Amino acid sequence: MYDVHSVREDFPVLKDVIYLDNAATTQTPVPAVKAMEEYFLSYAGNHGRGAHRLARETTNHYEDARETVARFLGTDAKKTVFTRNATESINIVSRGFPWESDDHVIVTLVEHHSNLLPWMRLKNEGVDLTIVRPDATGIVDPGEIMSAVTDRTRLIAMNHISNVFGSTQDVDTVIRLAHKEDVKVLVDGSQSAGHMPLNIASMDPDFFATPGHKGLLGPQGTGVLYMKEPDMIEPVFVGGGMVRSVTDSGYETEPSPAKFEAGTPNMPGVIGLGRAVEYVEEIGVSDIEKHETSLARVAASGLSGIEGVEVYGPENRSSVVSFNVGGMNAHDVAMILDQTKAICVRSGYHCAIPGINFLDVDGTVRASFALYNTEEEVELLVDTVSSIASMMA
Amino acid sequence: MYDVHSVREDFPVLKDVIYLDNAATTQTPVPAVKAMEEYFLSYAGNHGRGAHRLARETTNHYEDARETVARFLGTDAKKTVFTRNATESINIVSRGFPWESDDHVIVTLVEHHSNLLPWMRLKNEGVDLTIVRPDATGIVDPGEIMSAVTDRTRLIAMNHISNVFGSTQDVDTVIRLAHKEDVKVLVDGSQSAGHMPLNIASMDPDFFATPGHKGLLGPQGTGVLYMKEPDMIEPVFVGGGMVRSVTDSGYETEPSPAKFEAGTPNMPGVIGLGRAVEYVEEIGVSDIEKHETSLARVAASGLSGIEGVEVYGPENRSSVVSFNVGGMNAHDVAMILDQTKAICVRSGYHCAIPGINFLDVDGTVRASFALYNTEEEVELLVDTVSSIASMMA
Repeated sequence: MYDVHSVREDFPVLKDVIYLDNAATTQTPVPAVKAMEEYFLSYAGNHGRGAHRLARETTNHYEDARETVARFLGTDAKKTVFTRNATESINIVSRGFPWESDDHVIVTLVEHHSNLLPWMRLKNEGVDLTIVRPDATGIVDPGEIMSAVTDRTRLIAMNHISNVFGSTQDVDTVIRLAHKEDVKVLVDGSQSAGHMPLNIASMDPDFFATPGHKGLLGPQGTGVLYMKEPDMIEPVFVGGGMVRSVTDSGYETEPSPAKFEAGTPNMPGVIGLGRAVEYVEEIGVSDIEKHETSLARVAASGLSGIEGVEVYGPENRSSVVSFNVGGMNAHDVAMILDQTKAICVRSGYHCAIPGINFLDVDGTVRASFALYNTEEEVELLVDTVSSIASMMA
Repeated sequence: MYDVHSVREDFPVLKDVIYLDNAATTQTPVPAVKAMEEYFLSYAGNHGRGAHRLARETTNHYEDARETVARFLGTDAKKTVFTRNATESINIVSRGFPWESDDHVIVTLVEHHSNLLPWMRLKNEGVDLTIVRPDATGIVDPGEIMSAVTDRTRLIAMNHISNVFGSTQDVDTVIRLAHKEDVKVLVDGSQSAGHMPLNIASMDPDFFATPGHKGLLGPQGTGVLYMKEPDMIEPVFVGGGMVRSVTDSGYETEPSPAKFEAGTPNMPGVIGLGRAVEYVEEIGVSDIEKHETSLARVAASGLSGIEGVEVYGPENRSSVVSFNVGGMNAHDVAMILDQTKAICVRSGYHCAIPGINFLDVDGTVRASFALYNTEEEVELLVDTVSSIASMMA
């Protein structure tokens, strides 16, 4: 197991705050920040667009980052596209998939808006949507998903880990059963990539989306999209860098990944992401998972023991703990935690209104953990929530 | 006039190379790099997504950058959307515009692929395209554009300055005449914003697109889209951060600019861009224009004087100089410039194949200037090209 105190040296802001909003975004380690600084100060050029030394060096670093991310996720660089965020990754699939009228898509009720709205919008194209409900702890039964499959179902889109419940879905079973029915599966790995060991080759999804700025510890403004068959997807954006030839009357696109990366890419961000993923590899994702889930379970257990506090999600949770202090607005709880103890937690709907409505509340407080959080921070959270709850009692 | 030697202190890579590929991307000044570093190390959180101090501070810096960019461009922050690059900015308009079958769009032959392919693709939606040819120096006659207008013409999309010819288009006249015919105009300002004084309020385009990483000196991975009437454009991406309410059956989007910025934005990039634009303001864009065009004209004049060298574009050019050395492949010229004198220029089609084909060549060498280039660098370019040409003679 790694030494959390030495890890914290790489995240200077942790000296000032108790940062427990990692499901929204993690902090970026100093080595990744330095990699971006080095890019800007010593070799920035444009990607794939020039014969000169800076363009070549930038291209090499950018493509090295793609190799790093692909290796970490257990897949092939050619099928690994860089995007701005998981939202873009999912929208690329929803917009570029070869839909036909009366096609059918299945999602779950515990999706982030970014894995819900892109499918809802397909109604305009005559594509039907079924939303499958979870159990009370946010876990969706693969059997319930499969019983919604019809002969028109083309795709199942679901989270790997819920950002509200911290529940882990059995995506392996869904993928295996769906493929038997010739149905494709998109996995939203926003809360799983970098937080748990995963391997795309063995998971075998048709699409896998993740931001760069959560478990992968990269900068905000980066995301990843894996596509098993990139040729089946039409790109959303067309322009420079993704075409092979252009005449007055038409154009021929490059193969993946260039086809999906029109225009000047976010080179500094991707280079920072590549270094951040190396950092995750150096620490070790199995140890990160053990550390984070241990903290989350201690937090959930401590919070559950406070009178008037309700904790959501399963016992066997990942690094996310949603809760409410009886009678209090979630934002007020978050504000008090911030103002009294510099504890940063998320409050509200977490971009998942249907999932929150399912809980029949107006929002939750959410503490979410990363590799750099400590047991002392968890204790302070539990103690402070306990004080807030007693004040209200 | 500013002191170019003190400006150069803010761009350390210029000690190692003669960087003349600014039309592809400029370098980013140290104060902007420091602003991004400060973000990562002292206050990174997620935008608009939390009540805690880091989320608030990040949101404030991000929205301050929007105010800065909007002020610099002479427009309103609510109509100023952050994108990844100008390619995305233009695609947002081409994909979100309320097209009807048999609508008609006009572009010019001297567009970057990113302002050509998004309109070519509309053929699939039954939208016709007319491509207007320039004169021999890359200038497009507003009268020729207007004579292509039909009663079905909805939009004219054109560059402000050509990235191949360095020619400045008379967009003011086109906009004035087009508006009389109830035709909207998109201006691709990729080579103008930050390189010349411009004011969107007085120019009055319906759409204005620019990357953040060229004349605005921001980091790669940033772009800007101005829309006069953002409500008329449907967003390309839907998801978190751009919706007000979501039910099982539908959703209601936020107004601009949030509507167009789904998912976690590139906060570090935008914050760096904001600081870079302040830097441009501090130097003064009028002085930058004088400096850059003076260098470009000296270069064009010097290169034209070399036997066997052909220079393209108008006398009255902006900061771009395209040329060829008789009988030589443009890439070979660029490689020799790089290997012998560390001079970084672009070579090839410059993502504008139809414009290059119009010149009846297989590519050009392109030197493009920024505020930090010097007359000594121009002299070295001209002398080195002269040596290459005499070797070939």
